[in-house]
Amino acid sequence: MIFSFAFDTDAAEFPAMEKLFSKIAIVGAGAIGCYYGARLARAGEDVRFLMRGDLATARARGLRVRTPDEDIVLPEVRASGAPEEIGPSDLILVALKTTANAGLGRLLGPLVHERTMIVTLQNGLGSDAELARLFGTERVAGGLCFIGVNRTAPGEIVCLTPGSVSFGEFQRPAGARIRGVADLFSRAGIRTSVSDSLAELQWRKLVWNVPFNGLAIAAGGVTTDVLTGDGELLAAARGLMIEIVAAARAVAGCDIPPLFVEKQIEVTKAMGPYRPSSLVDFLAGREVEVESIWGEPLRQACNAGVDTPRLAMLHALVRRLAAAR
Amino acid sequence: MIFSFAFDTDAAEFPAMEKLFSKIAIVGAGAIGCYYGARLARAGEDVRFLMRGDLATARARGLRVRTPDEDIVLPEVRASGAPEEIGPSDLILVALKTTANAGLGRLLGPLVHERTMIVTLQNGLGSDAELARLFGTERVAGGLCFIGVNRTAPGEIVCLTPGSVSFGEFQRPAGARIRGVADLFSRAGIRTSVSDSLAELQWRKLVWNVPFNGLAIAAGGVTTDVLTGDGELLAAARGLMIEIVAAARAVAGCDIPPLFVEKQIEVTKAMGPYRPSSLVDFLAGREVEVESIWGEPLRQACNAGVDTPRLAMLHALVRRLAAAR
Repeated sequence: MIFSFAFDTDAAEFPAMEKLFSKIAIVGAGAIGCYYGARLARAGEDVRFLMRGDLATARARGLRVRTPDEDIVLPEVRASGAPEEIGPSDLILVALKTTANAGLGRLLGPLVHERTMIVTLQNGLGSDAELARLFGTERVAGGLCFIGVNRTAPGEIVCLTPGSVSFGEFQRPAGARIRGVADLFSRAGIRTSVSDSLAELQWRKLVWNVPFNGLAIAAGGVTTDVLTGDGELLAAARGLMIEIVAAARAVAGCDIPPLFVEKQIEVTKAMGPYRPSSLVDFLAGREVEVESIWGEPLRQACNAGVDTPRLAMLHALVRRLAAAR
Repeated sequence: MIFSFAFDTDAAEFPAMEKLFSKIAIVGAGAIGCYYGARLARAGEDVRFLMRGDLATARARGLRVRTPDEDIVLPEVRASGAPEEIGPSDLILVALKTTANAGLGRLLGPLVHERTMIVTLQNGLGSDAELARLFGTERVAGGLCFIGVNRTAPGEIVCLTPGSVSFGEFQRPAGARIRGVADLFSRAGIRTSVSDSLAELQWRKLVWNVPFNGLAIAAGGVTTDVLTGDGELLAAARGLMIEIVAAARAVAGCDIPPLFVEKQIEVTKAMGPYRPSSLVDFLAGREVEVESIWGEPLRQACNAGVDTPRLAMLHALVRRLAAAR
């Protein structure tokens, strides 16, 4: 199923920007999906949540999102357990865990019409390419979420760090529609930016996620302060970051400066005892996003002829540790 | 305290070889110390055991060593809790865990006379140099034990694989005295060999110990069959082995052929579900020989300018995992 049409339109062609996305489907209603969905719904958008575990609660009591500034209380939300109930939508935000990506075709198929845009908010690499394979390259974009947010109970979300979302389109510079998505988010009170290289956004996020999510698990379930406070573990983290920078250059032509690596380390030191999301999943006995965070970057690096010995070993260890849990 | 004298004597100068080592002290009476000590005592040698935890049992009931061929029962052994009780000895076999090496000076000092030979049977790197620093280079040698042996209870040892011991002298070719030690072991029913490069013996053993002891711990406490049965963990093991081979070449001029690495992997595959000794220690909550197996090889590789990214990361992980246990 390949859809082919052009998005090379100018923003001026859409004077009423909100008409671009009059119906928004959120696929996967964990912390990320609920947080952005609730913000968009509160801003007046027509948001439909496709959810599973928390469906009954969301239908009965709506959603409650606590942020540092305010509580967003939505007594009623439009939540569905099947994509057919939602039907064709103008914008799909994919907030599934990547471990559920085998279901993308089934879950998104009924939501897609000719001009539906699909924005994956997922971690790591590979989801955009999979969506492009399933639904056509032109409609696929990504949003990198820099946010601290947790689901504390069914329908209850706590956001500690609102952060920002960086958008980009799949394998092409940013066009009018992804800028429209960013505007939509901005109007809902979310800080956004738009980049001409989605791949660079993804690789930059991996510069942090690969070492800190991975070593936190492999070192026995430790918080990031343990990793930055131990000279040799920090050296391993830095070595991993440098491998990711080299892979990003070879795979995607990204020029991530060494200063970026050092900056990430400084920021992490300032974060104190933080549990990376993969460690939270690991300790809770949930599936860890092994392939999107470590496996796919490793495969792409290998295909590009980049030697990533630390990444290869860390992938093998995390995969084994997660599988045995 | 440096002792200086020559061992460059011909074996013919010592027609009565047993007179070379009429009194033998075993320092550290775990599985290794008890096994070799019991064999030597049964062969008629004057063996003195310096032990701590099992002292009362050994004094009351002696030692019992079960081997595939026979049970060695020694109702009485000469066991002491203080080196001063044993006094100057002709041969000291050091079978302490390397984590106890800070006590070498105190424990061995009272055992050393002018011509005492000290043979470390310990794992990894660094013990021989430490003994040389304390007691003089010329008296120090090493024996690499390829053996499967466990302490099952105080004074009770089970040897599953008698294996062999490979001897060499510290920083010089094998001389008459270490050949005398090997003869002593041979007469006690132990298969032995003598090498002109102790360093090469040590590095060759590390080719196995570094990856399999380390990954068994870091991958969550798995037996070696899990490591050899997982393509990526096996690739990590092979990568570690190749790093050790490169380090051995740069540090000690050892030419360990690639075939040796592959042979080790084949042997390991044939071993089935084996728990490396460091994993046994780790799972039992005992100290792991982190520095002699991973730390010192890493430091020597770094000093020689060899890049060992996997070894560095594995050392950092194992050190952390062992410390947190």
